[in-house]
This record gives sequence, structure tokens and C-alpha cells, in this order.
Amino acid sequence: MSRGDAPLFGRVTIIGFGLIGSSLARALRRDGVAREIIGCDADAGVRRSATRLKLADRMMSDAGKAVSGADLIVVAVPQSGYAAVGKALAGKLKRGAIVTDVGSIKSAVVRTLGGRLGTDIHLVPGHPIAGTENSGPAAGFADLFAGRWCVLTPPPATKRQAIAKVRQMWLRCGMRVAVMDAEHHDRVLAITSHVPHLIAYTIVNTVSDLESHMQAEVIKFAASGFRDFTRVAASNPVMWRDIFLNNRDAVLEMMGRLYEDIALLQKAIRNGDGATLHRVFTRSRRIRRSIVQAKQD
Amino acid sequence: MSRGDAPLFGRVTIIGFGLIGSSLARALRRDGVAREIIGCDADAGVRRSATRLKLADRMMSDAGKAVSGADLIVVAVPQSGYAAVGKALAGKLKRGAIVTDVGSIKSAVVRTLGGRLGTDIHLVPGHPIAGTENSGPAAGFADLFAGRWCVLTPPPATKRQAIAKVRQMWLRCGMRVAVMDAEHHDRVLAITSHVPHLIAYTIVNTVSDLESHMQAEVIKFAASGFRDFTRVAASNPVMWRDIFLNNRDAVLEMMGRLYEDIALLQKAIRNGDGATLHRVFTRSRRIRRSIVQAKQD
Repeated sequence: MSRGDAPLFGRVTIIGFGLIGSSLARALRRDGVAREIIGCDADAGVRRSATRLKLADRMMSDAGKAVSGADLIVVAVPQSGYAAVGKALAGKLKRGAIVTDVGSIKSAVVRTLGGRLGTDIHLVPGHPIAGTENSGPAAGFADLFAGRWCVLTPPPATKRQAIAKVRQMWLRCGMRVAVMDAEHHDRVLAITSHVPHLIAYTIVNTVSDLESHMQAEVIKFAASGFRDFTRVAASNPVMWRDIFLNNRDAVLEMMGRLYEDIALLQKAIRNGDGATLHRVFTRSRRIRRSIVQAKQD
Repeated sequence: MSRGDAPLFGRVTIIGFGLIGSSLARALRRDGVAREIIGCDADAGVRRSATRLKLADRMMSDAGKAVSGADLIVVAVPQSGYAAVGKALAGKLKRGAIVTDVGSIKSAVVRTLGGRLGTDIHLVPGHPIAGTENSGPAAGFADLFAGRWCVLTPPPATKRQAIAKVRQMWLRCGMRVAVMDAEHHDRVLAITSHVPHLIAYTIVNTVSDLESHMQAEVIKFAASGFRDFTRVAASNPVMWRDIFLNNRDAVLEMMGRLYEDIALLQKAIRNGDGATLHRVFTRSRRIRRSIVQAKQD
């Protein structure tokens, strides 16, 4: 226990041992947050890698067995796997166990994961807003969460004590924690994260459709704007597929708003309207400064 | 002369002493590329700042006077100022002088800048693809160009020796140098740099139009995608206005291509077509990897 605090949990089971799950295992262990960490992943290669890296006390393949006796279960698989995990856990959880997750979309979690968990189980959906463009247990690291925000979206009837324990866990990982309504979370993330990723994926593909001699030059001269786009576009394809499938309405709404604003700029370019361009660009710069001031850079 | 090479030029005059102009002055001085550096800027604050930082042998306000006796003139003002600079330089240049620039759009340079320069003057338009989100002489630094590409777009009749000298200058600044047709350059940059910036500016403004309570949360939870966008959107508004006004056709063409690709993804989201999303995202990731391999990260 590097930080001198008592463990919050006896046994913690982390289901899904990718970038986020394995980073959480590292942080929990480093900071003595759990007495025992059980890792679970359906992929044998992931289990071997996690075992070699000594990230958990035990690595298991069967989620129903892995959660036996666990005080906290963290679901860290792509969200398309939630229904299967919920089914595997049905009837296998200890009374009073807390279940949380790390998925990017919160409005669907209670339905997909929580339906069959049983009575006297506390579901506290969560979203640690942290990540890199890399995937898999070897890419994880304990400091991934430090200084970032985690949003918890517990349903109204959730016991305060369960929320407090999940909050404590993320605080011990160095995160700042906020609680909000799941639908509101999904709308905020649609514009701050999902739409930017969608554009990044698109622009990278547009480039790859250009004639091949031009594509080589695009890569050669890739200027800063494009490099930032491609960094974003290198993220886990399965995770992002699930995000767009699960947050469809909010993403489409925000895309609609974005289109209206692009149309204005496009018209200004077509008409040679420099005053409008300058006004819009100046305003963007101001917003950027307020983000820097909010220390989210 | 830190690199032990002889100076390439006697007197170099840099017109426009912002981020790029002042960084070039620093690099030329550090590496002994010029015997004398004359700085020129219409803004008294910029001249004071450059003088205080000792970036040039002399700072002047009048471009016509500043170029007197110069072997090389580097035009580093926003491109909306090119016509005025071209006019100010008419009849003031030494015979055999070389004129280059650092503007992001190359197809208009010969027309806006080169029209009146006179006979026996060599115009070698250039674009050092380097920059930061900051502006002004205090933001410059000598290493800004190191390892980046510079594209030269000399008209067909340009003397080889003039091209070679400008190339040598950028090589001494640590750049890699390519020569290509101006129109081709502008199309490549439209998709790698200008369209990404346009989207970034737009998305930041879309956010600022959201209701105020949501905006605060957007800033608070700004996830990686959005932060990258806002970094790009903080660049110099005048420079970007000029880029879009000067590269209108290529930008509008690339926007059209982008729209087609976004429409495909949007339809996939609306229809819950996970297979298409996964295929597109996997492809983007592959392109990102080829950029990393090209060492442009």
C-alpha cells in the first residue's frame, strides 16, 4: 500500500483485461485498494499476457466463476459484450456485491448489464474518461487515470454507500469524480468525444481514397492538423463501433448541429467572406483558452 | 556558426516577424546562415519585442527600405498582405536578389507577390510545414523547423541556382525539402491541413453554441478527441482566414469528398450497421500506422 490507506475491497474481479481493465488492475494493486484482484478475459492471448505481466492474482476465462466471492466487479469489455456478461453473472454474485463498468455510453448500461444481476446487488455505472490510442493489457499503465475525470451515473434508487465506494476507488486511482444523469452524460460525450472521433475516422478514410500518388504525399507531408486526426483515428475499432451503436441519437443530433455550422463556414469560403471567417476563428481561439484555463490540456 | 558551414547569404531581410519569421531569424543566426539579418514588421509592438529579444541586427518598419541591399528576402506576413508587400518592394530590390515566402498556399504567390518585383529577381515560393498554436515573435524558436518538410514551388522558368540557395537555407534549418507544382501542393495541403482545421474550428464553435450549463461540462470533461480539436482551433485567425480565402477551390473540393464519406458513416450509425463501422475504423487505424512508420509523428 503505497499511499498508506486501508484496502477498500477484499476481492475485486475485473472482467475484460484490455487497456482500461489492466490499467485499473495496476492502479488498484499499486495503491493497495484491493486485497485480491481476479482478472477475467475470454481471450487466451490476453490472459497469457496479463499473467506474464503479473497484473492479477489470478486470470480466469469464465466470468461466472471469476466473480465468485467478489466484493466489487468491474466490467471493462466493449459494450457489445455487456448483455453476455450480464447473463454470465446472473445468480453468481455474492449478496451485497457492487457492480460497476467503464463503458463510454451510460444510458444503456442498466438495461444491457443490470437486468439479471439479482436482488441485493448494487449497480453503479461509471465512465473513467481516460485512454490512449493503444489497446490490450501490455499498453496499460497505472497512471492512466491520474488527474482525469470519472463520471458515475447511478440510477436514482442506488444506495449511497455503493456509490461512495466506487467513487473512493477512482479517487484512489487519482481521478476526479462527478455524478450525473446517464442521458446527460451521453449528450456531453457525443460532442466532446464521439463526433470528433467520427470526423477523424472519416477524414483519414477520405485521404486513403485519394489517388495513390497523392496519398503517399499526404503521409509524407502530414501537417499537424492531420496528425492529430490520425492519432484519434487509431483507437480501438470494436470499442468505437459499440460507442456509435449505443449513442446513436445523441451523435446524430450533434452531427446535425455541426453540419449547420460547417455550412456557414463553407458559404463564407465560397463567397470570399473573410470577415465571417475571422470572427469564427477568433471565437474558437477564445474557447480553446478557456479549456486551457480549466487545466484539461 | 555552430555548424561550421560558411554563410549562404550576406544580408537577409525577413518581412513579417511573427512565429515563422522570428523562428527563421533565430535559426539563421544560430547556424550562421546569414551575415546580417534585417527584420521588418509594420507592428511597433512586434518590432519592440524582436529588438528586446535581439532577434535581428536591425528592426525596420518600411519594407521598401528594409530590403535595400538584401541578397535574400523572406516574406512571412499573412497572405492577404502579399500584394502590398509586392508593391512596396517594386524597384527596391538588388539585382539578382532572391525572394521567397513561407505562406501556406502556393498557387497565388506568383500573382500576388511576384508581379512587380522586376527583372533579374528570382522568386522561389516556399512553404515550411511547421508551426504551433502560438503567434508572435516571442513564441518563435530556432528548432521549429527541425525534422519537418519544406515544399518549394518555383515556376518552371526559375533559375536552378536560386532554387538551390533557398533549399540550402531550409536544409541548414534542419528541414527536409521537396519541390513540386504549386497547384498540387495546395490540393495535398487542403486535405492534410486545411480541412482538418476547418472542422476543428467548426466543432469548437458548435460547442460554444450549446446551452451554457452544458458548455461548462464540455470544458470540464473535455476528452482527448475534443482537446486535440481545440488545440488546432487556437491557431492564428488571420493566417487561417487567408488560407481559406486563397485555397478556396481545393478546400471546397476536399470538403465535398469528406461529406460523401461522413454520409456513409452516418447512415451506418442510423441503421445500426456495426460491420461497416468496424471495417472503416479498422482501415483508419491502418493508415495511422503508415503515418507513424513514415516518422511524421
